[in-house]
Formats: sequence, C-alpha cells, structure tokens
Amino acid sequence: MKYIYIITTSIRFVLKQRVDLYQTPFCVSLVKQYSSWGSKKQHRNVKLNFPLNRMADPKIEEILAPFRASVKEQGDLVRSLKTNGAPELDVKKAVAELKLRKKILEDKELALAPSDATFDRAKMEDLLRRRFFYDQSFAIYGGITGQFDFGPMGCALKANLLNAWRSFFVLEEQMLEVDCSVLTPEPVLKASGHVDRFADLMVKDIGTGECFRLDHLIKAHLEKLAADKKISQATKEECQDIIVKLDGMTKQDMSDVIQKFNIHSPLTGNELTEPIEFNLMFATQIGPSGLIKGFLRPETAQGIFVNFKRLLEFNQGRLPFAAAQIGNAFRNEISPRSGLIRVREFTMAEIEHFCDPNDKQHPKFDSVKETELLLYSACNQMDGKSAEIIKIGDAVQRGLVANQMLGDKIVAKLVPVIFWFQGLVANQTLGYFMARIQQFLILVGIDTSKLRFRQHMSNEMAHYACDCWDAEMLTSYGWIECVGCADRSAFDLTQHTKATGVRLAAEKKLQEPKVIELTEAVPNKSVVGKAFKKDAKVVQDYLAALQKDKTVHVEEIIPSVIEPSFGIGRIMYALFEHNFRMREGDEQRTFLSLPPVVAPLKCSVLPLSGNAEFQPFVKQLSQGLTRLDVSHKVDDSSGSIGRRYARTDEISIPFGVTIDFDTLKSPHSATLRERDSMGQVRIPLDVLPSVVRDLSYSKTTWTQVESTYPKFEQQENTKAT
Amino acid sequence: MKYIYIITTSIRFVLKQRVDLYQTPFCVSLVKQYSSWGSKKQHRNVKLNFPLNRMADPKIEEILAPFRASVKEQGDLVRSLKTNGAPELDVKKAVAELKLRKKILEDKELALAPSDATFDRAKMEDLLRRRFFYDQSFAIYGGITGQFDFGPMGCALKANLLNAWRSFFVLEEQMLEVDCSVLTPEPVLKASGHVDRFADLMVKDIGTGECFRLDHLIKAHLEKLAADKKISQATKEECQDIIVKLDGMTKQDMSDVIQKFNIHSPLTGNELTEPIEFNLMFATQIGPSGLIKGFLRPETAQGIFVNFKRLLEFNQGRLPFAAAQIGNAFRNEISPRSGLIRVREFTMAEIEHFCDPNDKQHPKFDSVKETELLLYSACNQMDGKSAEIIKIGDAVQRGLVANQMLGDKIVAKLVPVIFWFQGLVANQTLGYFMARIQQFLILVGIDTSKLRFRQHMSNEMAHYACDCWDAEMLTSYGWIECVGCADRSAFDLTQHTKATGVRLAAEKKLQEPKVIELTEAVPNKSVVGKAFKKDAKVVQDYLAALQKDKTVHVEEIIPSVIEPSFGIGRIMYALFEHNFRMREGDEQRTFLSLPPVVAPLKCSVLPLSGNAEFQPFVKQLSQGLTRLDVSHKVDDSSGSIGRRYARTDEISIPFGVTIDFDTLKSPHSATLRERDSMGQVRIPLDVLPSVVRDLSYSKTTWTQVESTYPKFEQQENTKAT
Repeated sequence: MKYIYIITTSIRFVLKQRVDLYQTPFCVSLVKQYSSWGSKKQHRNVKLNFPLNRMADPKIEEILAPFRASVKEQGDLVRSLKTNGAPELDVKKAVAELKLRKKILEDKELALAPSDATFDRAKMEDLLRRRFFYDQSFAIYGGITGQFDFGPMGCALKANLLNAWRSFFVLEEQMLEVDCSVLTPEPVLKASGHVDRFADLMVKDIGTGECFRLDHLIKAHLEKLAADKKISQATKEECQDIIVKLDGMTKQDMSDVIQKFNIHSPLTGNELTEPIEFNLMFATQIGPSGLIKGFLRPETAQGIFVNFKRLLEFNQGRLPFAAAQIGNAFRNEISPRSGLIRVREFTMAEIEHFCDPNDKQHPKFDSVKETELLLYSACNQMDGKSAEIIKIGDAVQRGLVANQMLGDKIVAKLVPVIFWFQGLVANQTLGYFMARIQQFLILVGIDTSKLRFRQHMSNEMAHYACDCWDAEMLTSYGWIECVGCADRSAFDLTQHTKATGVRLAAEKKLQEPKVIELTEAVPNKSVVGKAFKKDAKVVQDYLAALQKDKTVHVEEIIPSVIEPSFGIGRIMYALFEHNFRMREGDEQRTFLSLPPVVAPLKCSVLPLSGNAEFQPFVKQLSQGLTRLDVSHKVDDSSGSIGRRYARTDEISIPFGVTIDFDTLKSPHSATLRERDSMGQVRIPLDVLPSVVRDLSYSKTTWTQVESTYPKFEQQENTKAT
Repeated sequence: MKYIYIITTSIRFVLKQRVDLYQTPFCVSLVKQYSSWGSKKQHRNVKLNFPLNRMADPKIEEILAPFRASVKEQGDLVRSLKTNGAPELDVKKAVAELKLRKKILEDKELALAPSDATFDRAKMEDLLRRRFFYDQSFAIYGGITGQFDFGPMGCALKANLLNAWRSFFVLEEQMLEVDCSVLTPEPVLKASGHVDRFADLMVKDIGTGECFRLDHLIKAHLEKLAADKKISQATKEECQDIIVKLDGMTKQDMSDVIQKFNIHSPLTGNELTEPIEFNLMFATQIGPSGLIKGFLRPETAQGIFVNFKRLLEFNQGRLPFAAAQIGNAFRNEISPRSGLIRVREFTMAEIEHFCDPNDKQHPKFDSVKETELLLYSACNQMDGKSAEIIKIGDAVQRGLVANQMLGDKIVAKLVPVIFWFQGLVANQTLGYFMARIQQFLILVGIDTSKLRFRQHMSNEMAHYACDCWDAEMLTSYGWIECVGCADRSAFDLTQHTKATGVRLAAEKKLQEPKVIELTEAVPNKSVVGKAFKKDAKVVQDYLAALQKDKTVHVEEIIPSVIEPSFGIGRIMYALFEHNFRMREGDEQRTFLSLPPVVAPLKCSVLPLSGNAEFQPFVKQLSQGLTRLDVSHKVDDSSGSIGRRYARTDEISIPFGVTIDFDTLKSPHSATLRERDSMGQVRIPLDVLPSVVRDLSYSKTTWTQVESTYPKFEQQENTKAT
C-alpha cells in the first residue's frame, strides 16, 4: 500500500506538459496501486463520467448550474487579469483556483451520471492478465513498476494497430516515415530544452532514500490535514489555499510549505531532503571513454527534426510535407502507476507536418470539413460549459472569421488570445489532423461517445505552441490524453539551427522576384584618407561596390510544424476498456469486442472433437487461411465447443469456424460464428478462407454474410469455463 | 584515419561469441573508417570471394591444394589433442593456429576468384546516402559512430522486411509473439551471464582517454612490427606466434605483451592503462532513487525466457511451442565501424522454440527435407575443405546414422564430439529452422549463391550450446553472420530458475503412470523410544506411513531451446549489396533490384508532363492504389520520363505507371513498366491498380502480365540524371 496516498494530478513544468501527453492522466478519479493490478479485490464498478451533454437532463443541469457559474466567474477573472496584464503569479493563482472549480464541477457531473455508467475494471484486468495481453515485466524477479511486457495477444493487437496507423497516415498521406536512434547525445536534448526543463521536483526520505514527487506529497499531506476534524477552520482554509496554488509554486515556495507544516516521510516518519529537480530522462554513456553523455530519447520527434534537411531534400525541396516515426521513448517516472497509462517505456507514433508559417491551409481539408468532433475548447473550460459537438469546418471557419474582423496589425499581436478565448481551431492543417485522428480512433475501435478533443488552456501550453488539442478518451481513470495535436510553430527547427549553425530552413519561391537593397557603406572619407593615404581610392571604390542591390527569387523560411502525436499504449488501454463486454445474463462470461482490423487473431478453427477424421479439414482450412494472410488459431483441445468459443471470445477472435460431422459429408462445409452477435452460418469449405479474409479486412460485413449463407441454428452453451 | 589500423577479427569471450552474431563479421577483408562511409574515394571495386565450389576449376584447385592440406593437418592435430584430453591452453593454441591457416586459405581463394567478381561499394553507398536509405544519426551535431537513422526508403524496406518475417514465421508457424521491455534490471542479466561476461578487454590512452580494444591493438602493433624489414627473424616469428595465440590469451597474458613490446597509443604515443574489462551493455538507473541498476537489453531473448511460464500457460501447458520477438537491442561497442554491420543499437527478430530435450523431431520437417543448403561444417572447416551443398534431410539423417552406430551409453558421452567432427546438423528442429531461414532469405532477395550456413567450431560455441549454425552472407566485407541458429539446450531457463526460485519447467505426460519408490525411513527404535517414550508409537507409525510409493502421471522437464535469431540491419545491408545493379552500358545509372515484397514502394505514378489534363488520372490512380494498400509515389516533378524512371529505379520501385496523351482517350489506359527488364505494357486504367497489387504481392508475375497485355515500345532514355 506504499503509494496509495499519492493523488495523481498533472503538475509539471511547462515543457513537460507538452511532451507528457502520453503519461499524464488529466483527470484521475481513482488511484490504483501498481502491484495490485488485475486483482479482484479493488475498484469493482468504477463509475464512468459520461459526457453529460450527450444525455442532457434538465434536472441535472439545474443542480449543476451553480457549479458552472462558479467556474465561469473564475474564468472571467482569469481573462480580465490577463487582459489587464496582471503579474504572472496572480494569473497562475487564479488559474489554479479555476482548475479546482473545474474539478469540483466534473466530480459533481460524475456523481450525477446515470448509475448504469459503471465499469468493472478489476474484471477486465483479470481477463487481460489471465490471457496474457500484457503483464508486469520481469515479474519472476519481483518486477519493476512502470514496465510491461505484451504477451501474444497484446503484441498482435499492437502490431495490428501500428499497421493500421501506418496504412491510415503514412500510406494514405504519403508521409516520409523514418526510424531514428533511441540513444541521443546530450547536445541534441540540450537544444530541445529537455536537459534543462524535463524534470519533476522530488524529495527523498533521508533514512531510506525513498523518493516522493514533491507536489503529490504536499497535496496528500494537506488534504489529510484539512480533513482532520480537530484542526481549526483557519488552518483548513490555509491548506486548501496551498493546494489550489501548488501549480504555480516555485521550488522555494514548496520547500517553505514542507518546513511550515513539518512534513515528513509518510512511510517512515523520517526527515526529508531539500527539493531536488529530478530529470526524467534515463542517462547513460555512449562509447567506452565515459566522455559522451547520452539519454534515451523522451520522445521520437527530435529524430525527425535533426533530419529535417535530408527529408526536405528527399521531398525535392518542397513544402508542405509530413514525416512520421513509430518507436519507443523512455521516461524515468518517479512513481509510475495506473497500469499502461503511466509507464517508463512506451511506443509513440508521431507525425511532424512541416508547412509554410504563413500558409497553414490544407489541400485535403474539404474532404473532412463535415466531420463532427466533440470539442472542449479552452473557452468552454473557463466558462464551466461542457464540450460541444462542432463540425471541424465550422470550428476552423469561426476562427478565420474572428481573425478577419480585426485589422491585420492587431491580429498579429492578438491572435493567440483570440484563439484561446474563442475556443476555435487555429488553422486548417490542425483541423484536418484532428478530424483524421478521430477517424482513425473510431476505425480501430474507440467509442465515439467516449472521445473528446480538449484544447490546452494558455497556462498549460508550451510557450512555443500556438494551439494544442488533446484527443482524450474516457476510461475508468477519467479522461486520459491519448493523442496530442499541436501547432509547435518553428520552435524546434530554430533551436537546432541555433545549436548547430546548420540552417534548418526551406526556400520559398517568391511570386515575383524581389529587389533587396543592401545596406550602404558610407565611408568617413577623411579617416579613410588618413589611414590608407594613396590607397584610399581603392578602398573607397571597394566600399562603393558593396552597395549594389540584389534580386532574389526565393526567400528562406523556417517551417512551422503541426504535430499529431499518438501514445500507443494509452490507446490500447482505452481500446480494452471501450471493448470490454459481458454476455447478457452471464457476468462471468466476459470478452473483448475489438474490431477485426485490430483483433489479435482473426479466426479460430475448432474441430468439434478429437475425432481423427476432422484433422485433414482442420489442416486444409489452416493452410487456406495462412495463404490469405489471415491470422488464426487452431484450438483442438478438449472441452465443449461453447467452452472453447468462450475462450476465443476472451482473446477477441471475431470469427470462429467449427468442423463438425456434417463437414465430413460432400460438399464439405463448416459453421462460421461471429463473436459479438454469436450468430452462425453454414459456409462451403472452399470459400470459407476468403469469406473470413473479406470480413477481417472490412471488404464485407457480417450482415452481408448472414444474408448470403444459410443460418446455422444451434443453441450455444453460454456458460463460461 | 583514426581507426584504420584496427583489423577486425572476432576475438571475444565465449558468451560474447554466441550473442554477438549480429555484430561480428567473421571474415573481414577490408577495414572501413566509419566517418567516410558513402565517400567516393575509397574501396572502389572490392573483390568478392565467391564460393569456389560452385565454379570449381581444376587449375585453381591445384594451387589451393597445399593450403587445404595445411589446414587439414592442423585440424587433425586439434582433433587428436581433444581426443587425448590435452590441456585446454594447448587446444586453444592449436585452434588459433587452425584459424590462421583457414584465413590464409580463404585469402588465397579470394585472390584466385574470377576478376568479374568485384563490387563497387562506394558507388552503392553513394546511392544509399543520396536517396536517404540510411545515414549517420545526429549528423548535424557531428554524429556518433555506430548509430544510424533510416530515412523514408530504409524505413519502408525495414517495415516490409519485418512484416514479411512476421508473416513467414509468426503467422505460418503460429508462434507466440511478445513485446518485452528494453530496460532490464541487473539481476536478470546477472543470471543470463551478461553482467559478468559480456565484455571486451580495452586499454586507454592515459593522456587523452582514447580507448582501444586490446586484442585489436596488439594485433595491429605486432603485424606492423613483423612487416618491418629491419627486425630479426626471431622477433618476427615471436610476433606471429603471439598473433596466432591471441584468441586464447588471458588478460594477464595480453598485459604482458603490452609491457614486453612497449606498446603505446598509436595516435599519441602516450602510455596506456592496464587492461580493463569493458562491459558492452549500456547501464542506467531505473527510478529516481539511484538504487535500481538496469541495462539496455543486449539481446531480446531474455524477455522471452523470463516470460516462459506465462507463455507455456498460454499454450495450455503443451510443448513444443515457439515464442518470437522483434525489437531493439543495444551494445556499447568500443569502436563501431563497417556501416550497418557493427552498430550500437539494432533491431533483432528472435525465435525461441521450446521443446522436449529428448524429442527434437519436428512435425513439419518432411516439408523441407529436400531443401538444399550450402553447409560449411565444422569438419570441413578443420579439413580445409569448402562448403558443400547438402539436402537438409540428408544432413540430419547422417547425424542420426552416426548416432545409431554407437551404443546408447557411449553416445550419451560422445554425442557432442560426434557432431562437431561429423559436421552434421544435430536434430530435425534445428534443420527445419535452417531450411526455413534460407527460404525466407531468398524470398526477401538474398542471392542464394552468396549464402551459406557455417557451423560453429567447438571453441567458438557457447558452453551450453549443442550445435550452432550461422547463416552467413557474402558481402564486400566478407562473409557476415546475419542469422544464428543455435540449440541452446536448457541453459537460460535453468539459470533463471536458479536465480528466482521460480521453476521454469514444463510437465510431460508419461506414456504410462510410473510408480516412484520414496526413500524409506528406518527409525532407530531405541533412540526413538528413549526420546518419545509413550509417544514413540505415534512417531513410528508416522514414519512408516512415509514409506508409501507414489504413482505419477507426469514428469517435469526443463525444455531445450532452439533459437533462430535474425540481425535485421545486417540482412538489410546484405540485401543492398546483393541487389545493387548498374544498367548495361551506363555505369552511372545504378539501381536496386529489391523484390517487390520488400521494396520500399511498389509503384510510381508519373504524368508525362505538367499538363493539367493528366491530373484527374493521377489522382484516380493514386486513390485506387491506396484503396488496395499499394504503397506508391507520385512524381509530377519536371524532368524527362527517363530521368524520373532513373530516380524511381534508385529507390527500387519495381513498377512504374506513366500517364500520357493516350491516357486521355477512351478507353483510358496507361503504360506499366517493370524496373529490372525495363519492359513496358499498355493496360486499361481501371484494372491497373489490381494488376500492380497482384505483382507486388507475388499473385502474378511480370511474364504473365507481359503475355496478357500489349507491349508498349518506346525507347527509354537510359541516361542518368
């Protein structure tokens, strides 16, 4: 029960907040001790916080009204502070208070959610562990928190998910996919800002060396204190005030809190060290000399940025283009938990779309503009309003309108503010990717009703970003960020240019050639005359020659980068939750209804019994499926067909073939069963593999198959094994 | 020119030799300085050492005869030393001498190879670099040796290669694929032997800290000395003697050599430190406390072994089964070089086939038994003979015959010796995988005439292995090991069982129940009587009850492991060399003739000119190809068709479609061109995508397409860009 007291909230440095998408659950309703994952005892029936606007109930809205008003009041305060240029600390404190009010509102929404919106996480984790979708790494050695191994089913799901991603993004958009080194020398990450700022504050128990994340520790201590009935109202209020302000506190502020409240190690009661800035990157030495310091990359993006010149050249010098990378990244979390949500090594899939900073239109935007997204704008967040369903075309359009309403010069300065508070999507390219992200997530099995795009508020966003929207998925841990979609402007390319002297820029052809006046050299004739005497004329002629104008046909620009960035492990976790099912009337019979495109295996082949006559048909079918690249599993173990179906349902196999005594008769046929409906049809053996292939790759639907082949009626024993 | 003096030979500790397959070129004929990779200046026309037995020439054989005899003589000596149980050091020295003689023989073979067997490596590397197949990582920061980034074409080739591997092995054999953690806690790698023994000896320049691999340094120094005309014959012989014995030398031996010959840093002339054992694993700290030491995994295999129990359970407790893993591994090489051949991070694809140690038959062996492999047995290596083409069925069979010729008891002791010197494949499972490895390599484009399987000689093999064959590919660096195929026996599972107390064993059902006699407890009645007095009877009854026999139905076995293990980067490098071509009559026009299954892109779409009327057809075709998952590239840049074909040939695109003025006419059609033959046909636009798809996935052949559609005759401009 070591870590159970730590309440997860994301309080990190600014840089961290950007790159930490895959790691930071924004809203965590329950804390889970790592080592008990999969246990049957804890957290049965976690209540899920469904987006209320989708089930609007006037009575509920009445109760929520004062909470919404409270958020709006504080949101207005933050705005006016910003508009009036109030001191940064005042703004931060006001924002922290705003966040607290938002949290109270969300908790209230959760409490009022319909009672059927619950979820049995322990039951799902039992299934995932039992069928080895994933499990703790090195468990026979006691394991390390924050590390997981994917077993056969998890690994196949992951491979399918990545293939679908590659096909949907890289192939469809003809992106330039790269595969870069994990070990990264220090100067690269110094330039990107990670060496200096990718850190969390922590304190250590001076006796045991146990480490605690400082903000978590203070929060837990003060919350406990505030809940104590014996303490004074004044102290209670002070505690609450500090909790609210934690987000804006400096290292010294927090150190003072530790002193003032005499906070000790919650495990041993020992003294604690002074706060230490703990960099979250894993450090190592490259080469034998011990002189080259390196880190395991904390994100894959930097590998793309340092290759920008080669990629631009590969694209024949033309903008826009997108590069992509799938790979592992590493973060040495102080206390990882929440299963796959916060881990120390994880797979990312990142896209860096490079474009002209003055032209972020997207040629294919028209094809997605009608796509409806559930947008939770910064504006709505500050007003205490819910997320809204908006067509992406309108979201981008409204932004443009607001933009045009102001004079050009004013816009240049105000655009960021306008976009924050308008809650609109900054440009077409960003909007295009948001729509594509949603399409992809739905394709692989994310439940649309549990998906929203939340815009970063100005205090969360990295200083270099213009706009950032996170695709968040609702799970029993709350809304978790699974995909980030940010306009990173030209920050990274500029930083690497500064650090290396290699200009990471593109040339843009001018509409018409431009004459550039070069600065004129006006010599002080008397000084030149004195210094050079008889050579003075030569010098003056030379200086005069420098004055020529120059005609240029191109201008150099540092491209802007739009970055959609996917946390694969988190998406997988959301997929598990969104597709976990129980058979009606039999809670013990659980299964995963993953779409065939990502299901670990597409088909099972089950001989009715151990009868030797079935074997040739099993073999024939297996070979036919292999030939068509349909992954499948032969289960010829003993046990009734119902029992074996239940087992294949658990590993989410969407289609099952049973070889029975009728199969032996000519013309040979077998039954084909669909996992979710449990419907069965009878299909000739020779076409079975291609039917399963077509079903697996969405070339046909189960409804079509059911209407083509005779239904097979036989009561399936639904009792679980 | 820093490292150029280092001659690469593989001299490592025993453990290292097994796991180092992907990293150690066995026979390196040329040394290449890393930083000049892709340069045009060095190593033009490297001579390739073709297997001579495939082009046997009596005259050449006559010249080679004495060299072969010299190897055989030494091979016989090694055998007799082993048979007579000579001291280990004597055996080692004899083996070292044997290796030297083998090297001389191979060099001679190389020198006598036909003169057309040359290869222009620099030209190929120019192409690979220019079209960004891969390049040095972090080059704008000066780069780090031994690290490479794959650009769009290299990355696509790698992804296709891995997909082909997954389909060929995991899907076809229904293996259990897993995806395990890279960061590995120390105890795991302590048990596997890596912490203690995965090291190279090195010395440092005491002035600059520059590191040198000790064996390389000594060898280079003594070779230079021996070549000096001024030194005495005695010294020369001493130098040669030491070089021969280096392989068997201890740390102290080598230190003495450094002292005796007064060897200094070849770069500065500075003194050197004492030899240091440099562990090749990258170390880091897991978690913030600094207390958990971890390493980046040096191979992926351990992740499978520590998950053995879960995998066995997933397989319902049954043997045999195979697990597989694709992933990155890391080795902190002292001085990496040879491009992709020896790098610090690399992708492996490993299979661990677990089976009954007493039954290594393979159910599918019959399907491969006719496959012919070029086997270079340990026996032939010792006899100075060449590799031989043998059917895998015969190779395994001959092993069995040799086995049966001896009485059972003798075999039990002699089997390892028999297999060494018989040069045969130890068992069916090993043989099955060797055949499958060859089939796979040919499928992805390896040239069969440059592929052999070399058996490890007893001195190279890890102590726990029974037999090991490396699939080696002939490149301009010599024969390089790309795939290892070893029978690792039960070593790893045993080690992890010892370290954790968790029994990594399987239960084997006995043919018939066995009665086990338990040890009988015979109480010393008088002592018992004295001690227990009136209770003595109870004690004696209890002891008597212990004597019952026990009937068991299963026995516990620790499975043997057969491990095929693929170095993906090395295979890619061999693919580049084996598929590098120049157009006849135009040496400047180079291209890569990779098979469609692995080619980075399958198809190009080229409008004849910038004419706007072509655009709708380009778009239509591109969408059609995307729908069928055919990766392609639209090249609408200016430049003649010939020029653009040349560009697509360079990136190995096998099929090219040109939209021309005839396309505009109804019925719409376009030309389809095949890369290697440059043949062209005219195909209706509506069937074009599916024809390309079928060609790309080997559902049809170019010959079939040529016979179906009308030939398109137009001279292609073969001049390069």
